[in-house]
Amino acid sequence: MSANFKVLVLNGPNLNMLGRREPDKYGTQTLAEIMQSLTKCAEQHNVVLTHFQSNSEAELINTIHDHYDKVDCIIINPAAFTHTSIAMRDALLSISVPFYEVHISNVHAREPFRHTSYFSDVAKGVICGLGAIGYQAALMAAIDQLRKQDNSN
Amino acid sequence: MSANFKVLVLNGPNLNMLGRREPDKYGTQTLAEIMQSLTKCAEQHNVVLTHFQSNSEAELINTIHDHYDKVDCIIINPAAFTHTSIAMRDALLSISVPFYEVHISNVHAREPFRHTSYFSDVAKGVICGLGAIGYQAALMAAIDQLRKQDNSN
Amino acid sequence: MSANFKVLVLNGPNLNMLGRREPDKYGTQTLAEIMQSLTKCAEQHNVVLTHFQSNSEAELINTIHDHYDKVDCIIINPAAFTHTSIAMRDALLSISVPFYEVHISNVHAREPFRHTSYFSDVAKGVICGLGAIGYQAALMAAIDQLRKQDNSN
Amino acid sequence: MSANFKVLVLNGPNLNMLGRREPDKYGTQTLAEIMQSLTKCAEQHNVVLTHFQSNSEAELINTIHDHYDKVDCIIINPAAFTHTSIAMRDALLSISVPFYEVHISNVHAREPFRHTSYFSDVAKGVICGLGAIGYQAALMAAIDQLRKQDNSN
Amino acid sequence: MSANFKVLVLNGPNLNMLGRREPDKYGTQTLAEIMQSLTKCAEQHNVVLTHFQSNSEAELINTIHDHYDKVDCIIINPAAFTHTSIAMRDALLSISVPFYEVHISNVHAREPFRHTSYFSDVAKGVICGLGAIGYQAALMAAIDQLRKQDNSN
Amino acid sequence: MSANFKVLVLNGPNLNMLGRREPDKYGTQTLAEIMQSLTKCAEQHNVVLTHFQSNSEAELINTIHDHYDKVDCIIINPAAFTHTSIAMRDALLSISVPFYEVHISNVHAREPFRHTSYFSDVAKGVICGLGAIGYQAALMAAIDQLRKQDNSN
Amino acid sequence: MSANFKVLVLNGPNLNMLGRREPDKYGTQTLAEIMQSLTKCAEQHNVVLTHFQSNSEAELINTIHDHYDKVDCIIINPAAFTHTSIAMRDALLSISVPFYEVHISNVHAREPFRHTSYFSDVAKGVICGLGAIGYQAALMAAIDQLRKQDNSN
Amino acid sequence: MSANFKVLVLNGPNLNMLGRREPDKYGTQTLAEIMQSLTKCAEQHNVVLTHFQSNSEAELINTIHDHYDKVDCIIINPAAFTHTSIAMRDALLSISVPFYEVHISNVHAREPFRHTSYFSDVAKGVICGLGAIGYQAALMAAIDQLRKQDNSN
Amino acid sequence: MSANFKVLVLNGPNLNMLGRREPDKYGTQTLAEIMQSLTKCAEQHNVVLTHFQSNSEAELINTIHDHYDKVDCIIINPAAFTHTSIAMRDALLSISVPFYEVHISNVHAREPFRHTSYFSDVAKGVICGLGAIGYQAALMAAIDQLRKQDNSN
Amino acid sequence: MSANFKVLVLNGPNLNMLGRREPDKYGTQTLAEIMQSLTKCAEQHNVVLTHFQSNSEAELINTIHDHYDKVDCIIINPAAFTHTSIAMRDALLSISVPFYEVHISNVHAREPFRHTSYFSDVAKGVICGLGAIGYQAALMAAIDQLRKQDNSN
Amino acid sequence: MSANFKVLVLNGPNLNMLGRREPDKYGTQTLAEIMQSLTKCAEQHNVVLTHFQSNSEAELINTIHDHYDKVDCIIINPAAFTHTSIAMRDALLSISVPFYEVHISNVHAREPFRHTSYFSDVAKGVICGLGAIGYQAALMAAIDQLRKQDNSN
Amino acid sequence: MSANFKVLVLNGPNLNMLGRREPDKYGTQTLAEIMQSLTKCAEQHNVVLTHFQSNSEAELINTIHDHYDKVDCIIINPAAFTHTSIAMRDALLSISVPFYEVHISNVHAREPFRHTSYFSDVAKGVICGLGAIGYQAALMAAIDQLRKQDNSN
Repeated sequence: MSANFKVLVLNGPNLNMLGRREPDKYGTQTLAEIMQSLTKCAEQHNVVLTHFQSNSEAELINTIHDHYDKVDCIIINPAAFTHTSIAMRDALLSISVPFYEVHISNVHAREPFRHTSYFSDVAKGVICGLGAIGYQAALMAAIDQLRKQDNSN
Repeated sequence: MSANFKVLVLNGPNLNMLGRREPDKYGTQTLAEIMQSLTKCAEQHNVVLTHFQSNSEAELINTIHDHYDKVDCIIINPAAFTHTSIAMRDALLSISVPFYEVHISNVHAREPFRHTSYFSDVAKGVICGLGAIGYQAALMAAIDQLRKQDNSN
Repeated sequence: MSANFKVLVLNGPNLNMLGRREPDKYGTQTLAEIMQSLTKCAEQHNVVLTHFQSNSEAELINTIHDHYDKVDCIIINPAAFTHTSIAMRDALLSISVPFYEVHISNVHAREPFRHTSYFSDVAKGVICGLGAIGYQAALMAAIDQLRKQDNSN
Repeated sequence: MSANFKVLVLNGPNLNMLGRREPDKYGTQTLAEIMQSLTKCAEQHNVVLTHFQSNSEAELINTIHDHYDKVDCIIINPAAFTHTSIAMRDALLSISVPFYEVHISNVHAREPFRHTSYFSDVAKGVICGLGAIGYQAALMAAIDQLRKQDNSN
Repeated sequence: MSANFKVLVLNGPNLNMLGRREPDKYGTQTLAEIMQSLTKCAEQHNVVLTHFQSNSEAELINTIHDHYDKVDCIIINPAAFTHTSIAMRDALLSISVPFYEVHISNVHAREPFRHTSYFSDVAKGVICGLGAIGYQAALMAAIDQLRKQDNSN
Repeated sequence: MSANFKVLVLNGPNLNMLGRREPDKYGTQTLAEIMQSLTKCAEQHNVVLTHFQSNSEAELINTIHDHYDKVDCIIINPAAFTHTSIAMRDALLSISVPFYEVHISNVHAREPFRHTSYFSDVAKGVICGLGAIGYQAALMAAIDQLRKQDNSN
Repeated sequence: MSANFKVLVLNGPNLNMLGRREPDKYGTQTLAEIMQSLTKCAEQHNVVLTHFQSNSEAELINTIHDHYDKVDCIIINPAAFTHTSIAMRDALLSISVPFYEVHISNVHAREPFRHTSYFSDVAKGVICGLGAIGYQAALMAAIDQLRKQDNSN
Repeated sequence: MSANFKVLVLNGPNLNMLGRREPDKYGTQTLAEIMQSLTKCAEQHNVVLTHFQSNSEAELINTIHDHYDKVDCIIINPAAFTHTSIAMRDALLSISVPFYEVHISNVHAREPFRHTSYFSDVAKGVICGLGAIGYQAALMAAIDQLRKQDNSN
Repeated sequence: MSANFKVLVLNGPNLNMLGRREPDKYGTQTLAEIMQSLTKCAEQHNVVLTHFQSNSEAELINTIHDHYDKVDCIIINPAAFTHTSIAMRDALLSISVPFYEVHISNVHAREPFRHTSYFSDVAKGVICGLGAIGYQAALMAAIDQLRKQDNSN
Repeated sequence: MSANFKVLVLNGPNLNMLGRREPDKYGTQTLAEIMQSLTKCAEQHNVVLTHFQSNSEAELINTIHDHYDKVDCIIINPAAFTHTSIAMRDALLSISVPFYEVHISNVHAREPFRHTSYFSDVAKGVICGLGAIGYQAALMAAIDQLRKQDNSN
Repeated sequence: MSANFKVLVLNGPNLNMLGRREPDKYGTQTLAEIMQSLTKCAEQHNVVLTHFQSNSEAELINTIHDHYDKVDCIIINPAAFTHTSIAMRDALLSISVPFYEVHISNVHAREPFRHTSYFSDVAKGVICGLGAIGYQAALMAAIDQLRKQDNSN
Repeated sequence: MSANFKVLVLNGPNLNMLGRREPDKYGTQTLAEIMQSLTKCAEQHNVVLTHFQSNSEAELINTIHDHYDKVDCIIINPAAFTHTSIAMRDALLSISVPFYEVHISNVHAREPFRHTSYFSDVAKGVICGLGAIGYQAALMAAIDQLRKQDNSN
């Protein structure tokens, strides 16, 4: 039977407004609802999920540092910080944990400044435009990846 | 008689240094003095003014979220965040309140990196180089705009 | 009591079409109506206002030259010439009079070629998206600035 | 039988030199000859043609304004103003009349600065390199388009 | 019970080499194996899956045209055509079927010319770097999306 | 009496979808209908018209090669290949036949990547946005050009 | 003895302000004084000099057209039109007369937009930063060039 | 004595027109003649040469795939595909065979879009402007390279 | 004997991870160890050193403001904020204290986005790639500079 | 009577080939002949002329250094070094002598890389396309400038 | 029998370090060894070879000038000067001798600044990545070219 | 006790003018004085210092080659060659010795063309704006680095 993986899910600025904010772009589900579903899904695969959302770059960085050696994988939706935060990129690299980048909306169909990311080139994978499903896809990919590593040890 | 409008005034990083900081660019008035004048001016037009300054992007975002459904208009001087904070842009869009962008100095006469803004294309209007008068101009424009909407309802 | 200031208001090409032309961008007021309001506002502050509109770059340049040593300030809406007329920029610089740049619509929300200006970096201030109020804001700023100079002499 | 359409043909700077000027690029026909042929062609289709050429941007703008609500379509060869006159673009937009952009020579085979146009993206169609035939093609397209509109009313 | 959805899976050039070609980038699974898994997964959700791979842009375009009005969704891995084929983009738009763009490797971690896509801005979603899991993620998202549409009818 | 000219009309990828595909951009006429009209028009001028459409760049290149020394002029709508196929440009140059480039829609009003062409600078003329009329305009220009050459021999 | 050459000197916008306008950049001499010196200098070399200054692009173009076949050479200081007027470039090319481009100040030491010219690549020579001497230098070069042509005939 | 090397020579679009097509750029030899010489030259060095020309990107890709594990080296003149075909680049990489890029004309002396190549950075070497000799040079380099490898085994 | 200088040392985001984070880039010393050495070094030169590290841009800005008129020089390693924080640049300028920019690794040998700095052009000096020695070099330069000023008073 | 001015004339690489090298661009006069004329011209104005030509950047730099405090003005034709030698620019600045930049041909009509200069923005004036006359024009300007300075002392 | 051709081989900076310098890029052969082989090869074809290497741009330029009218062809490996020396380009053009550009390593696989050349567009041909064979390839092409010219005289 | 390290200090063009040249940028110390201090400092650390300054790129390259296998580290101030000399970069790489890049002034506060360096990305470290102290800082870093290597052997 596969190991008990630990995954940290990080959500960046304004994602606390999900459900209220521009529902045509982000849907009507709240972040709490999405994370609840994701947790259920994680439990079914024996994955322990921790979730943290913040509008503060510093709090997100500190949270990443705090999980050094404590998680197997990170799923991150950096939201607006995707395009501006080299500090968060560096934080992720500093703890050497593989991570997946998720965007609820299709960033490629939006403003040009949303077409660049300080995370994508160092992420394992990138998912956008799948709505809340995107987090689940990242989770599936993470589990698949971790199992392979686990088996090869 | 016109309604009682509510306006939030936001000031970004380093504006707490006004009066001390590079007076040839920003004048000798302190932010407190400018906001006092503006409040007086607002009261004369039956506008309730709330003011918040912070050097923290996160605090400014949280303040924007907190005023969801509580203000009719925002006047914002994002200062240095003008050119770097997509997160604040998203925060403003997330609460669907019209806003005016104000700069005390003429940003076009300064460094090239001050010539781009993450706010201008989604603002109602943009004012720069008018010194403290810029806030009053924004207030006048906001009142004018809100009255028109009020009348058309 | 403050001095009698003289202000020249210049309006560039197509502004004679105001009210007819793309009213969703420029409103339904005609230029005559806007200038009438502005003149009234100027009179209340003891300011003598001269207004000139033309679709001809040459006429606008000649008018600027003609007002050399005759006005204290210029308020200019260069309209389409904003982005193309270095000759008008040079004309303004040649008579060494401070000027304010006004745009009725928010140019930042329009075509990219409207995001550059041959005037902004040498203007005292720039105002856009405030509709007709923009001219009044420029006038207020001009008076404020001229009074300060007047007092310091 | 189809309606009597009214079409304004505008020719920009230096086109009065046609026949003399660089005949290898522009042919040996004079503008008068070309417009005579075009008028004949228009008459055969019951189209009333007005023609105006000027080396003055202001005169061209004024002529456009003067034809507000008086023509069904404009055929314009902005010549050198193609690449520099936002004011003429705005004039055309201000009177909300569909227009076709014509160039006698193939601008794509010439200097790079002739590869951009302030007219093309708001024109109905663009024709270049067809010589004098280009005006007739535009006329045919205009008639075709106007008849369709006419029929659908 | 939900409807029987039909999904077309398209794979572009060189994907027939999967398993042999640069296994460190693309893994050791063959395309046949990946499609077999995906078909099994589709069947569990009552989805009828059609698969087509080609090294020919023309064959891929023809296949898209042939499925006009015959599929509910397309999952496409355009491979190298991602960055060069406007014709395939146009083909997809011409049949008005929603599609998901999948890349096995993380294109953002590779050559700069792989960072642009003629598909992403008109796709529903984009997935890269998840390996073979990426197709399943796209399938899950498609089903989720189609069910929502189905329910709202 | 003028000679019997031979003209090849080439249509690129997705033009077989005309009538179905995005009718707001391309109209409701099918390609067959457009070519039928064009042939009739050609016959009236003693022009023998050959038509070929393909979604395959290779087939279009081969067709161009096959018409070496067999046609007097080519009218080509390269569609999406306009912006990507240097091979087709080279094919046209290799047989030294003058050609006209036609686009049904106004490419200048669409995505930026449609604003560049590998054909325009070596074409005799370029026509866009005239709908099906564009082909006729090209035919008229071709006949005019060929007659002039014919006469000067 | 050498022929009687005819030279047209053209001065563009704002040069009528010479002496008043920014004297640190352009000196204290008026344009009349400079042209008087130049005329004297021309007379000494049997050159008939005509001078025309205008702030109007159209008047300058018309003046160029009017001198078709009437002058041997043009010396032009296009001033601000240097960087914006393709129409004047075309006017000069349309009459096939060699011309020299003169700038009183060193344009290379000023704003970046003054570093490009629509005239330089088709001029015989370009002179800047020599003050009023620049016109004389152009005249000397013109005479030298015309004498060589004269002798070779 | 050295081993029997196997080399595949690939020629891209329009090279079948060699001899007819723009002889000032490509010479008067046909491709058949060039390949005949090259084969003779190869035989002298005990190299088995296979040659394939196509105007179809797909056929070229398929041919590359077909030679997986069957050739020691590829000499490729991708012609117009040099600048547009990432798919052919990927095909070459997918079979892990060293290749040389040959151009008959000097691409650096031609249009700017011919100055970039999707092949050069992954080729062993690049040769252009040597005419038909270029293929022989590539063959010599390939043999030299293969012999060294052979010897070091 | 020289005065008692006061120097503030600021370290930006992720520098708290020094020793753990990517040791091949940043070495194995912790920030505490580096600052201890630096303090010792400062004491030997009668310099009072204050040190502050934060992952929060706002805290760093506040700390800068707090040291207005309290320090003679700042040594700052802005880390990831180097490339993104105009707000910190403005904070440093607002208190008019000379500062030195230090980077432990050689930023020029890393990702392109690390090659630009919002600090360098307003710093006294910039040091990178010297490891922990970089701070000492900045301190030596600061002392040298302050002594010169001290002596000239 | 005016002072005895001293002027250094510097000519850069390949100018020793004048007369032989591309005579259509540079004329048939040798450098010796041109400098002889110039010296004569200088003597008539009491100017002592020193001339130095070299193909070596280092020799030119050393010559500039050697003339520190020994000349009143430099006339320099940096030839190909115009576009590449920052070291020569620095050498000229290091001795604080005004200089004029001369080019025999019109660099603006040649390759794009000849359109930039490391000298122009710090030169007093720039002359190109006047042939050998260009040096005389520079000399006249230098004398004029030096006399003005001389008189104002 | 073919004429006795004379060929100059020029090698630029650092090529004297061949064999020592970065052998993985440039191989272990010294320049002397490579030139010895090349000379032998030349002798077999009745070609007289002169070789010159220098780290000095000036010496290379002088050597080129010295061979004016003395050689039939030049083979040049400008090494680092490829990307920086317009002066050497001009020297080659000044003596009107055809030349071939050779690079030992594949410059396209190295730093971006090695992807541009001031020589390629005026060279007969360009060869890179063939190691020492590249010189022989250039020699073969030169002989082939010279024989053709010889024969056509 | 630590080994006897050997360090070569190289200074590029115009640095011989230190003390005379633009003292506000480079201070009043001569290069001799700076090198004297540096030598004293080196001696205290048992480092043997060799110094060479030249205005000749070739001499600097030759000096670098001459020190192959003779020094442990190079400290180089390439001055203007920083931005133009790929040949010196290659020379440094060819002898595989670590080097530090030093600039006396803060290049980031000067002209844009001084913001790029052909040395920085292959240097161990880069120091600018520290004045003469910069050389000492480089020396300290070099010693520190060499000692570490020494100890680890």
